[in-house]
Amino acid sequence: MQDELDPEVAVAVRASFARQGLMTALGAEIVELGPGRCAVRVSYREALTQQQGFFHGGVVGAVGDTAGGYAAMTTVPPGREVVSAEYKINFLRPAVGDSLWAVGTVLRAGRSLTVVRVDVLAERDGTRQLCAALQQTVVGVAGTTG
Amino acid sequence: MQDELDPEVAVAVRASFARQGLMTALGAEIVELGPGRCAVRVSYREALTQQQGFFHGGVVGAVGDTAGGYAAMTTVPPGREVVSAEYKINFLRPAVGDSLWAVGTVLRAGRSLTVVRVDVLAERDGTRQLCAALQQTVVGVAGTTG
Amino acid sequence: MQDELDPEVAVAVRASFARQGLMTALGAEIVELGPGRCAVRVSYREALTQQQGFFHGGVVGAVGDTAGGYAAMTTVPPGREVVSAEYKINFLRPAVGDSLWAVGTVLRAGRSLTVVRVDVLAERDGTRQLCAALQQTVVGVAGTTG
Amino acid sequence: MQDELDPEVAVAVRASFARQGLMTALGAEIVELGPGRCAVRVSYREALTQQQGFFHGGVVGAVGDTAGGYAAMTTVPPGREVVSAEYKINFLRPAVGDSLWAVGTVLRAGRSLTVVRVDVLAERDGTRQLCAALQQTVVGVAGTTG
Repeated sequence: MQDELDPEVAVAVRASFARQGLMTALGAEIVELGPGRCAVRVSYREALTQQQGFFHGGVVGAVGDTAGGYAAMTTVPPGREVVSAEYKINFLRPAVGDSLWAVGTVLRAGRSLTVVRVDVLAERDGTRQLCAALQQTVVGVAGTTG
Repeated sequence: MQDELDPEVAVAVRASFARQGLMTALGAEIVELGPGRCAVRVSYREALTQQQGFFHGGVVGAVGDTAGGYAAMTTVPPGREVVSAEYKINFLRPAVGDSLWAVGTVLRAGRSLTVVRVDVLAERDGTRQLCAALQQTVVGVAGTTG
Repeated sequence: MQDELDPEVAVAVRASFARQGLMTALGAEIVELGPGRCAVRVSYREALTQQQGFFHGGVVGAVGDTAGGYAAMTTVPPGREVVSAEYKINFLRPAVGDSLWAVGTVLRAGRSLTVVRVDVLAERDGTRQLCAALQQTVVGVAGTTG
Repeated sequence: MQDELDPEVAVAVRASFARQGLMTALGAEIVELGPGRCAVRVSYREALTQQQGFFHGGVVGAVGDTAGGYAAMTTVPPGREVVSAEYKINFLRPAVGDSLWAVGTVLRAGRSLTVVRVDVLAERDGTRQLCAALQQTVVGVAGTTG
């Protein structure tokens, strides 16, 4: 994989992310973006919890899926977008913390399918612990915006 | 599987669901509950979208995971709760519609692990179409409430 | 999905199956083939076991993956083959029996991706019990034979 | 995780592996074993192929599942065995080569469930390339041997 991300691709990724109502509603932001790599962070608040007050698995999955999708989008030609075809997530520990970090890394960027692994970590008092592991297939599609 | 759901279990499922900040934030509700079966519905609004205005995959996953978890909870002894150990989701079609329905059905209720299949359908003008398929493992845990 | 399988597709599926060294080595056979549907059967023998003498999970997975792949192949245009992009399998019970049946059913035949659910059942004294559930993504590729 | 593998556990892992009829039939061997880690190797032959002459996905899955299971078994108390509850596999490239290497690494060894990631590589002319990625849940069970 190349070393530097094409600035045009970085702009397209951030613009696509900004159009996601759910990411805005969760308060999620892209905190790292490179070739085949994307990290998304979301801060804790009550609207993101499950019944025991931890981050809800749905938030863990949504943020993980999104980080993986944009990691994949950095590997497709400019002008194209991506959609998740599928993902699988294992919950390793309760997601207890002040914030959640999802870090997607492309394993294989194929012509039609891109496979990504995503680690989701919960940060608490400055220490991050792996709380979920995703494996995902992403498909390139025609872009939606001019 | 038995024909009727123990009313005590039904109360426990609904109480647990009500404690999920995320489900409240999404506006999700349980619309069907039976032995080994749970359906959750959520109505469309902009805060639940991805970049093309459809239901976000994260919402599809969260609602599917939740319906599956509570389908499993109907099969564990009263006083116990459940957590998802893992799930896998295939996105079959864009989730375009006025509402989203996730219907979980237990495949196998084991002593420690319960396996559930979940169909997620998008309803549009009164017609529902399958838009995602989940397969999930749920684990029983000690209950959190007295 | 159409009601009848194109005979040309049926011939291509069976020819492709016959070229699989592993299926021959396992003694597997296609026992049902229809539009969006394929069932594969394999008889018990010691070479197919895990450490407790049941069918090995690897056999369960291989037969399930194959049944799903050929179910998908019935939905692609004649002259094309298929490959599995990914699958996920839950083992529900030990696969104890005289034979193993994998039954694949297409959930969604898309232009590029086909999603299949596969049930794997173990038959013992004439009774079949679900022992594994798969969910799989299959991709159409150019055929390998003239 | 500890640095050295308990020799009693190593003996139990190898004895369990030796009882697997399928691993013997495939000609598979354990080539590395450490705390939370196991690598399994299998050499190419025609009985292991799919319709294009590459390693069959079923072999890739079986060897990957087995490597992951024994990686998990190194983390459970002596006297216990393990079974796979589920796994998910993405096929990244055709498994073309002289041999197949599956390398399992435990992500999280919990009290009841252990989550493992497995890389499967195909070796060709001395070079190994990642051809499949697995993510797996393993459960500890009572041992079968005295």
